[in-house]
Amino acid sequence: MRILGIDPGLRVTGFGVIEMHGKQLIYVASGCIKSNDKHSLPERIGTLFAGISEVIATYQPNQSAIEKVFVNVNPQSTLLLGQARGAAMSALVHGGLPVAEYTALQVKQAVVGHGKAAKEQVQDMVVRLLNLPGAPTADAADALACAICHAHGGQGLGALATAGYRVRGGRLIG
Amino acid sequence: MRILGIDPGLRVTGFGVIEMHGKQLIYVASGCIKSNDKHSLPERIGTLFAGISEVIATYQPNQSAIEKVFVNVNPQSTLLLGQARGAAMSALVHGGLPVAEYTALQVKQAVVGHGKAAKEQVQDMVVRLLNLPGAPTADAADALACAICHAHGGQGLGALATAGYRVRGGRLIG
Repeated sequence: MRILGIDPGLRVTGFGVIEMHGKQLIYVASGCIKSNDKHSLPERIGTLFAGISEVIATYQPNQSAIEKVFVNVNPQSTLLLGQARGAAMSALVHGGLPVAEYTALQVKQAVVGHGKAAKEQVQDMVVRLLNLPGAPTADAADALACAICHAHGGQGLGALATAGYRVRGGRLIG
Repeated sequence: MRILGIDPGLRVTGFGVIEMHGKQLIYVASGCIKSNDKHSLPERIGTLFAGISEVIATYQPNQSAIEKVFVNVNPQSTLLLGQARGAAMSALVHGGLPVAEYTALQVKQAVVGHGKAAKEQVQDMVVRLLNLPGAPTADAADALACAICHAHGGQGLGALATAGYRVRGGRLIG
């Protein structure tokens, strides 16, 4: 199972690809797709769609997971974020991938063990779970976390425990 | 010039295709793409994207125009509408079409002559301008109106007047 995780945004969309071998998670790739805020909205939507399509063509995932987004205090921002997420989801569906959706809460619970984890804790756990040599950017880490959440069936750290990890207070130990 | 107009929505997305020969507008096709609200959001987004892609493949437009959407009083609705519009725009860009955006105000001004026109006035003018035998559905009419707005360069009834129409109080006469 090769999973593409997506953290959608109009300015920056993070992506992360992982593989699941039995209970073991293996890092494949991650990064982000940026759109130029000086370009028109159709151009920016085109950049996101083409970028995700290219990631799919390059890494050939067979599953995808995308973060649910929050309503912003600014309705215009909500509308823009919605359009970016619609473009990302279109690219996933057009690429023939089944799409699972997870809230940020579910992702944090699955990766850190509780829903109130800080960004840094998510990054830290992504590094540990995937044995990365360094921390990915926040957007790429969120996308990888979303893919990890999907790998665990959105079940949280229960699945990690059975994989031989020990968890205390939302941190991996041993 | 063959123009595809889109009135985006998650439940119903209207489409309308017109041709412009000199100053004359010719109706080609219109209709709507509906998504099933019992399906998951990724499925619904997939339906919209595939539907618009099919319209493009069938009618081969070389220009597109899409209505800008309003922020809804309900932020969740805004988010859903945004995602639908993002999917529609992705399909247009993926189909190789240049995408123009018009507000509902611009569309009404271009088609009826003022921005406060009622839905029925827009439908009525679309029927007259395209010599339709009957009124299209509201969503299809809005999409056709958006295409007409683009045909007139978003200029409003000034362009119509030069095309031999006379307009008074937002109504075509003679």
